[in-house]
Amino acid sequence: MEKTVKRVIGIDVGGTNLRGALVTQDGRILKRMKIPSEAHRGIDAVVDNLVNLITTIDEGNMPSGVGFGIPGIIDSRNGVITQAPNISNVHDYPIREMLSKKLDGDTRIVIENDANCAAVGEWWMGAGRDVDSLIMLTLGTGVGGGVILDGKLWRGADGMGGEIGHMTIYPDGPRCNCGNFGCLETYSSATAVRRMVDEALADDTIETTLEKEVLEVEPGHIPEVVMKAAIAGDEVSKNIWEKFGTALGIGMASCVNILNVEMIVIGGGVSQAWEMFIDAARKELTARGLRAPSERVKVMQSVLGDDEGIIGASYLALHEGY
Amino acid sequence: MEKTVKRVIGIDVGGTNLRGALVTQDGRILKRMKIPSEAHRGIDAVVDNLVNLITTIDEGNMPSGVGFGIPGIIDSRNGVITQAPNISNVHDYPIREMLSKKLDGDTRIVIENDANCAAVGEWWMGAGRDVDSLIMLTLGTGVGGGVILDGKLWRGADGMGGEIGHMTIYPDGPRCNCGNFGCLETYSSATAVRRMVDEALADDTIETTLEKEVLEVEPGHIPEVVMKAAIAGDEVSKNIWEKFGTALGIGMASCVNILNVEMIVIGGGVSQAWEMFIDAARKELTARGLRAPSERVKVMQSVLGDDEGIIGASYLALHEGY
Repeated sequence: MEKTVKRVIGIDVGGTNLRGALVTQDGRILKRMKIPSEAHRGIDAVVDNLVNLITTIDEGNMPSGVGFGIPGIIDSRNGVITQAPNISNVHDYPIREMLSKKLDGDTRIVIENDANCAAVGEWWMGAGRDVDSLIMLTLGTGVGGGVILDGKLWRGADGMGGEIGHMTIYPDGPRCNCGNFGCLETYSSATAVRRMVDEALADDTIETTLEKEVLEVEPGHIPEVVMKAAIAGDEVSKNIWEKFGTALGIGMASCVNILNVEMIVIGGGVSQAWEMFIDAARKELTARGLRAPSERVKVMQSVLGDDEGIIGASYLALHEGY
Repeated sequence: MEKTVKRVIGIDVGGTNLRGALVTQDGRILKRMKIPSEAHRGIDAVVDNLVNLITTIDEGNMPSGVGFGIPGIIDSRNGVITQAPNISNVHDYPIREMLSKKLDGDTRIVIENDANCAAVGEWWMGAGRDVDSLIMLTLGTGVGGGVILDGKLWRGADGMGGEIGHMTIYPDGPRCNCGNFGCLETYSSATAVRRMVDEALADDTIETTLEKEVLEVEPGHIPEVVMKAAIAGDEVSKNIWEKFGTALGIGMASCVNILNVEMIVIGGGVSQAWEMFIDAARKELTARGLRAPSERVKVMQSVLGDDEGIIGASYLALHEGY
């Protein structure tokens, strides 16, 4: 019998699309598939679509495992989605159990928070492939985080480890979705960029080339507009990125002082604006980090981009089934 | 031959005294010894005194290992004291090598930062004996920290992990000894209490029962004076403890969001003022921590007190020799 390479499926469960890939045990993507998630129809529709993706991507062959990266609060040990803002009406949903019923009983099913999957992906096949410890930050609508220590995802006692987006940067800062004030997420996310644009436009004494229409752009695309304006010389836009990077750097310095990791990887859609914020971020890291840890840590842009969650979920399906 | 219980020596290397104990493999202290460290005479004198303590505490019997808890920047892997503010002229001193020459070559020698030893001690035999993950904070002249994850001390890439005292709480706060501004240490330490007293006394418009003489008290004893004044009703003193606890709580919330540990243990001399600051700290923890991690985490006063470093160093000598 020919020796076959073990293969699993990694799936990024987005609010709009399910993006899946067939991945080998050495991290190669053999095939991709993208279908609508129909999350607005609720979790049953999402599960049906997931089953469809899983059963068709390898022409009917069942994989040894499937890993899911899901935005939200995930109880990975029990295979339960505690909360997922992008899927209608999901609360304490036992997705592993529901999927097991519909799939081959031998298929290992692993679910994990999407930012944790991104961290694992970058560590396994991306920017962090040569290090044992890293912190991943995904800058998007919010700020996701994941922590790899000693070559393992640190989940914490409730699977809630790595919520770096909710560390306090400025105790008297703006209110965050989480209820706290001045979280990293309130300065270094697309939502934060939108808020800062809004504040600037509301003040008639401030001159800027940004226009009110910016606020009608889909939130995820606002950073791009503000990036272009900054490049064209708009001071307000430059200042927004300065604040964005400064908060990010303060957060990175505290993380490095606490964990002395080898690397920080920055991904997510807003990381495309890298050149806009990275100098301010590095400046704070150097000024605020203890010498050895801040000199040691490499700050890198993510390498796998949109694939990092899929690759990370695949790794977990291969190695960390509960 | 009678089966003997394995025994090691744990030593707390203070600037004034060396406090050692003979400790069994199950964490019992059999015998204690305290001698002057003579740190002002430099590291050679300290080493001579350490050898004296080690060779006499068990009536000449050599232990299987010796663990040292040392305040400062410790390269535990290489057995080198990188920096130790309390010992004259120490810089990159290979203490393990120097001690090995003077002791039996079979004796395992482990050195570690004192707050890391405290964390290990509380996890092994103290407040954290039933948990797998905890954060230790030692509130003294400065704020030391240690992180236990999955039943292991997290040292980080350079042995600098756990420097929680140097996470930024208020980015525009006072300058810290480390060069950063607004570190936890600048709000929640004896030095911070002294600074806040100083600021209050310098302002003639502020009424307080504290007197200028307070500033001449040895820094480590100032918190006691301010505690008594607060209990007697002095508003300035109460306010100092409120600020102390608030900063501590902001730091705890960020730590809990990042690491989702089961417990935070608070020790060190200033933790004696527990009742003064713990309510403000818990309030911030609840307000700023994500729900599951902040409800989960137990915040405890240290149990072992002055012994925590000795017990932790003993554990490392038993289990983690490099």
